[in-house]
Amino acid sequence: MTKTHKKYLLGIDIGATNVKAGIVSAKGELLHQTSFPTNVRDGKDAVIHTITEQVRHFCAHHGIHADELIAAGIGAPGPLDYKTGILYFAPNLPGWHNVQLARIFTQKLKTDTFLENDANCAAWGEHWTGAAVDAQSFVMYTLGTGIGGGIIIENRILHGRDGAAAELGHVIVVPDGEACGCGSRGCLEAYASAPAIVRRYKSALRWEVGISATILEQSISAEEIVTKATEGDIFCKKIIEGTGKYLGRSIAGILNIFNPEMVIIGGGVSNAGPILFEPIKNEVNKLALEIARRKINITQAKLGTFAGVIGAAGCALTRLEISA
Amino acid sequence: MTKTHKKYLLGIDIGATNVKAGIVSAKGELLHQTSFPTNVRDGKDAVIHTITEQVRHFCAHHGIHADELIAAGIGAPGPLDYKTGILYFAPNLPGWHNVQLARIFTQKLKTDTFLENDANCAAWGEHWTGAAVDAQSFVMYTLGTGIGGGIIIENRILHGRDGAAAELGHVIVVPDGEACGCGSRGCLEAYASAPAIVRRYKSALRWEVGISATILEQSISAEEIVTKATEGDIFCKKIIEGTGKYLGRSIAGILNIFNPEMVIIGGGVSNAGPILFEPIKNEVNKLALEIARRKINITQAKLGTFAGVIGAAGCALTRLEISA
Repeated sequence: MTKTHKKYLLGIDIGATNVKAGIVSAKGELLHQTSFPTNVRDGKDAVIHTITEQVRHFCAHHGIHADELIAAGIGAPGPLDYKTGILYFAPNLPGWHNVQLARIFTQKLKTDTFLENDANCAAWGEHWTGAAVDAQSFVMYTLGTGIGGGIIIENRILHGRDGAAAELGHVIVVPDGEACGCGSRGCLEAYASAPAIVRRYKSALRWEVGISATILEQSISAEEIVTKATEGDIFCKKIIEGTGKYLGRSIAGILNIFNPEMVIIGGGVSNAGPILFEPIKNEVNKLALEIARRKINITQAKLGTFAGVIGAAGCALTRLEISA
Repeated sequence: MTKTHKKYLLGIDIGATNVKAGIVSAKGELLHQTSFPTNVRDGKDAVIHTITEQVRHFCAHHGIHADELIAAGIGAPGPLDYKTGILYFAPNLPGWHNVQLARIFTQKLKTDTFLENDANCAAWGEHWTGAAVDAQSFVMYTLGTGIGGGIIIENRILHGRDGAAAELGHVIVVPDGEACGCGSRGCLEAYASAPAIVRRYKSALRWEVGISATILEQSISAEEIVTKATEGDIFCKKIIEGTGKYLGRSIAGILNIFNPEMVIIGGGVSNAGPILFEPIKNEVNKLALEIARRKINITQAKLGTFAGVIGAAGCALTRLEISA
């Protein structure tokens, strides 16, 4: 078997709800993709077993052998050590402590496997084949159940001493504001994550409109609020505009700190379009230094929900090249 | 004349009030130092002429010839392009627009001269021979008339696309708060710079104590407030503690963004000691993620007012080595 047979990368994005995986070309094309439930309640060992089995079946189904794989990349919620491939812990993966993910997957998948923070993977994916292919330095926000951050400086991921850099969801936008899951108050995540958008929607309904408790108990998702806003619902529009304002406040600070080329926003809520992006830009124009904002490009991510998979594969390729 | 005669570096720190200069060894020792008024009102050309003349006399006085200089470094208030050595403009140096400082000083001083932002110089000085010699990644605040920031990531200065990174004074700590000189509101600089400390002191006197207008009109400096606080004046202590709280709020965000090894605080106000540093640490413990704060070292700068001179010299040495 010569080295020329190695032509595929494997990307795996381990989320608290679903695992996504994909076969990615060395140029960053997503050739095949799959996703399956994480079932975190089954416990760490069972989950890891399921992932490796599912990924093996997925590869076999597409006629890809382990020895055709250049490398595999895993994106996981941090904090983790990308160098040693150890996941220290993950708030949404109970029981996962100091898991040697890279080593375990290298053995089970029979290909060199590298670990990286999931939000960093998404940013790296956008850098490789998405919205940031032309940028050397940019900042990415991923709006979901939490708010992930990825910071690329001169084509390198900013990791920080403990791999805990770019926690953009935990930058304070309202001092002494809403309680955040991290234990602090007023974090961006407490205002612009999907659950925070739902909370703000319900709270606004309660106080501004005086809606009854029954209606408030009906469940609505952030995605539905975004859809309604884009369809013209004035109330939902105000909630998303407010989300943009909080985001813009945070981004203004980030521009003054990094003076980046771009800011990219991904995750379901970024589909709101101008309803989200206009207030972001207004806030940035009001709050950021002129030199830091005048050329700034604030734009939606391009790769969608498989950005993390593509980026995990890309990180693995880059790390393999560095270590070679 | 062989290359071994080149053994001195020249560091020049151009401030709005004073210019500081020093002869620095290749190991970062400040061998000789001087300072003289900038006299910005004389206009750009006269000021540059004065600086080069003063620096030449200073060197001659210490028996140092131009051909003994390895290189010279200039620290100047930004924004500037460190690569081309052009100062775009400086709010406190009226009339200085697109000044080719590195080229002019290279000609006049007859040694390779490099330009760098003054706050970056201070950080680089602390990295070279000060509080951060053992850190690869750290963030420095310089508290003065403005608040300067310097960010070192893996032993390199973070410049940003337009050389406007690390504007830590313009990160918002109080949304819709006090007006800042930059045009925004609620910036750290509007709460923790020297003039802001004086303003908060007078404002607190007015409202909390009900002092007459006459006393309020008496001038007091931030330095005096710091001295009084360290001498036990409870009122001044509260002002400095408040300053620490605003700083801590801002630093907590910086920790979540960079996960650095250290945060260094320089400038006159940093002499307040625990009265300033305790509230900083309390705020950080309350607001930053555990992983980002648990090993953090928040400490006073070591080099004092000549940090920028030493750092400018050090930057010049590093840049010369890179370009060689």
